[in-house]
Amino acid sequence: MAAGKKIVQCVPNFSEGRDFDKIDKIVSPLRGKEGVKLLNYEADKDYNRVVVTVIGEPKAVKNAVVEAVGVASEVIDMTKHEGQHSRMGASDVVPFIPIKNMTMTEAIELAKETGKEISEKYNIPIFLYEKAATKPARENLAKVRKGQFEGMAEKLKDPEWKPDFGEAKIHPTAGVTAVGARMPLVAYNIDLDTDNIEIANRIARTIRHSGGGYRFIKAGGVEIPERRITQVTMNLTDYTKTAIYRAFEAVKMEAKRYGVNVLGSEIVGLVPMEALIDTASYYLGLYGFSMDKVLETSLME
Amino acid sequence: MAAGKKIVQCVPNFSEGRDFDKIDKIVSPLRGKEGVKLLNYEADKDYNRVVVTVIGEPKAVKNAVVEAVGVASEVIDMTKHEGQHSRMGASDVVPFIPIKNMTMTEAIELAKETGKEISEKYNIPIFLYEKAATKPARENLAKVRKGQFEGMAEKLKDPEWKPDFGEAKIHPTAGVTAVGARMPLVAYNIDLDTDNIEIANRIARTIRHSGGGYRFIKAGGVEIPERRITQVTMNLTDYTKTAIYRAFEAVKMEAKRYGVNVLGSEIVGLVPMEALIDTASYYLGLYGFSMDKVLETSLME
Repeated sequence: MAAGKKIVQCVPNFSEGRDFDKIDKIVSPLRGKEGVKLLNYEADKDYNRVVVTVIGEPKAVKNAVVEAVGVASEVIDMTKHEGQHSRMGASDVVPFIPIKNMTMTEAIELAKETGKEISEKYNIPIFLYEKAATKPARENLAKVRKGQFEGMAEKLKDPEWKPDFGEAKIHPTAGVTAVGARMPLVAYNIDLDTDNIEIANRIARTIRHSGGGYRFIKAGGVEIPERRITQVTMNLTDYTKTAIYRAFEAVKMEAKRYGVNVLGSEIVGLVPMEALIDTASYYLGLYGFSMDKVLETSLME
Repeated sequence: MAAGKKIVQCVPNFSEGRDFDKIDKIVSPLRGKEGVKLLNYEADKDYNRVVVTVIGEPKAVKNAVVEAVGVASEVIDMTKHEGQHSRMGASDVVPFIPIKNMTMTEAIELAKETGKEISEKYNIPIFLYEKAATKPARENLAKVRKGQFEGMAEKLKDPEWKPDFGEAKIHPTAGVTAVGARMPLVAYNIDLDTDNIEIANRIARTIRHSGGGYRFIKAGGVEIPERRITQVTMNLTDYTKTAIYRAFEAVKMEAKRYGVNVLGSEIVGLVPMEALIDTASYYLGLYGFSMDKVLETSLME
């Protein structure tokens, strides 16, 4: 059987969450293109930001996203932008996520090509971030974006923050864009039968990376007052290395210490098939299993 | 989002497992057709039979399979056929399995159209079986095939066994074909840490339908002498109603009675994504989950 088609996901964030005419113009290049599928877009008025999800063939996705970035640089004026979410550009972040038959190295390559093209076409300086970062200090998006649009002109003068592509000069209205590559995120919440937020927070601290827990878990506690329970809310940032079942069993184990039970769990947004099948495989003690055995795999090649 | 493309699987069994020239001719119409994907074919010399798996768009799959049945009726002569597997026709059975965006009712309809076309084009009488059966006595393939090729001419004279399509007269060299619709089978084995086959047999009897167990489990015990263990070997004939995790937990529960542990399990052949994701969902206590949340679902539409 021939090697399967490469599939990449891209989740660009644009700094417009209120004017639906403008949002429509930005999203328009991502519609009806051969090899590109617009999965959804969600605008947030408070954030004044829209998060778009597309999926498809790497080249086709890259071309469509570059086009959308061009439109965003025309319709968004960052000197007039207000919103609760931190942001530094009209096209704020453009992460690529390898989905099928594609390595992280290839996703990084695609991010670099995209960044280069954006800077050349629209004179927008580019920072490469996360897995595509060229220096450790640029891996963390929060650090890259620190200073936000208003502080970027100054920040770029620091040789430490010379852009990866383009000149060290912000685009007057479109600012700066971060282009990167990352693993698919799994947003995962576990319900605890306690309304004591302190317990949820403590469990979250134990299992997350920053607290000495699993390498690819980010976690916090959250109250769900209408159900009189709390949740451990997580981002699993690399499910191939920190699996869903591991997060689940870790929370269960820690909850015991407080005499608290796990009630169930919830996946927010999309999840790669493999993340759940690996979980089934763990609980069934499956051996000799590979994703080729999943009937649907043959439908995606 | 528009309704997704319908995907059907078809697993025709042809009565030739030795002559690879003939097998190649039979399989040939299933190759390289728009909307049809040949997943694999496995010939068995002792059975003198080949099992072919194709998947794709219903109409395209139907047309290609009808064509293959035509070739089989030309290259196989059942009057000269020998093999250990029971059989009644050159194209012995043609089951359709709804895979995506397709109901069982639609698969049954497709089986009927296929059966009608085969009988009209090649003068082969057709029995509809399993979910496509027109009488309860025809649901079970073993009953339909009873008497085999050699006894079919006589069997068809019984009004009870009037074919669903075509005249009550076998095709002189191609015999009779059964066309049907069924759920995807999941072939599933569970390892026990005992070499006592009696224990495996007893567990199998308790959990299978015929022994008072789950409705859609067929099961037996089997020895794996090279590993000094035994297995409960199963066919789950409708995983949407008798789930994989249920079979697993049932075997674990019964094994306790004998002080025997479950070592792990194994899926043989292909398994629908949903069967495993449902299992993950059970163990994680997932709520608010639907298959739309699986990223790959959007790649198959």
